[in-house]
Amino acid sequence: MAESRTLATHTVSAFDQEIGQLRGLVAQMGGLAEQAVGRAMLALQRGDLELAAQVSAADRAIDMLEAEVERAAVRLIALRAPMADDLREVVAALKIAGVVERIGDYAKNIARRVPAIISDHRIEPISTLPAMARMAQEMVHDALDAFAARDPAAALEVRQRDTALDDFYDSIFRTLVTYMVENPRTISQVAHLLFVAKNLERVGDHATNVAEMVYYAAAGRHTEPRGLSAGEVQ
Amino acid sequence: MAESRTLATHTVSAFDQEIGQLRGLVAQMGGLAEQAVGRAMLALQRGDLELAAQVSAADRAIDMLEAEVERAAVRLIALRAPMADDLREVVAALKIAGVVERIGDYAKNIARRVPAIISDHRIEPISTLPAMARMAQEMVHDALDAFAARDPAAALEVRQRDTALDDFYDSIFRTLVTYMVENPRTISQVAHLLFVAKNLERVGDHATNVAEMVYYAAAGRHTEPRGLSAGEVQ
Repeated sequence: MAESRTLATHTVSAFDQEIGQLRGLVAQMGGLAEQAVGRAMLALQRGDLELAAQVSAADRAIDMLEAEVERAAVRLIALRAPMADDLREVVAALKIAGVVERIGDYAKNIARRVPAIISDHRIEPISTLPAMARMAQEMVHDALDAFAARDPAAALEVRQRDTALDDFYDSIFRTLVTYMVENPRTISQVAHLLFVAKNLERVGDHATNVAEMVYYAAAGRHTEPRGLSAGEVQ
Repeated sequence: MAESRTLATHTVSAFDQEIGQLRGLVAQMGGLAEQAVGRAMLALQRGDLELAAQVSAADRAIDMLEAEVERAAVRLIALRAPMADDLREVVAALKIAGVVERIGDYAKNIARRVPAIISDHRIEPISTLPAMARMAQEMVHDALDAFAARDPAAALEVRQRDTALDDFYDSIFRTLVTYMVENPRTISQVAHLLFVAKNLERVGDHATNVAEMVYYAAAGRHTEPRGLSAGEVQ
């Protein structure tokens, strides 16, 4: 009896240790993805093609971490056969890693547009994007913090901020279209900026997805569907 | 001995039956997502706002199927504790369902742009998009067929087509930007068309992701990284 309890305690702590490692890998991915968004925007503002190329190349590290999360999760399920809440946590870590990987892809996509946007004629609307980028980055940061702390309230708070980001995007969309009308020579450059803004809006959507998964894993039920936001359309 | 073999056979066939059901759900999702892309494009071509609203509303069914796949996969892992190849198949089904759900989101996004694109002035470039949409839909269809048939060769073939879709997208991007320059009054509408084209390009990327997962599940190793394609940037 005493021996079986010891065994059970041992098994539980091995699981806890392994899920801890899994969460650590996901947090590491999150840090890299958040950093990638910031560096891509810096490259865009400065017109720094070398930095843009670095951001693009660094995405490989995020992809490799995701593959590592997947292997670790599958190994954990196979060896520990977790049930109910524990299994839900492993599945959440796996899915969150997938979402964070896509956030990294958006950063890479922004970085790759830098050469097409930078030209002799500096286009003004670039100056409106960094504030939007910071808002999106903070959502990523706080969603990952909520995951680390298993905090459903913090997760819901991140999700609520997505509406403000969508509104910001809508405003930038209109600004960019107006700029195109008034400066037809810059249309090609500004079209790329439209996609940069859209990528930032999608980073916010994915931070929201992470928040919803954190809520599900911590609270055991899904969040209510949100209303349709303008950001999902434009 | 005979009894233990009977038991083993029974366990194996229960797993096979359940993974078969899981695959059936994913196939059903794939069919709905492919149809949604087609119907969204039809709504765009015809300027049919009612059809567009239907496509947007129908996305809920795809989301619900994904939640069902997730529940079924977790139940299967918990009850059958599959190992190695079997576990990899369950994880692949789970991940593919997530990707197909996003394809549905792209169709919804296209449908939601229809009201902003349709106006008194019909814009010509709409006519270039349906061929691109068909190419993307076929990739989705064939990637899901490769999944159903566990056919790594068919999966690789789908993946190869993504380059042609990216080239198609690049050509449409240039056409749309030129059209904007020549028809500044239509810039806002055409900006939405840029996003429609981008959504179709992303549908192709996601079909490619499905193909890569099918390959991984069937062949037990990852595909080689592809070179950078222009479609990932523009």
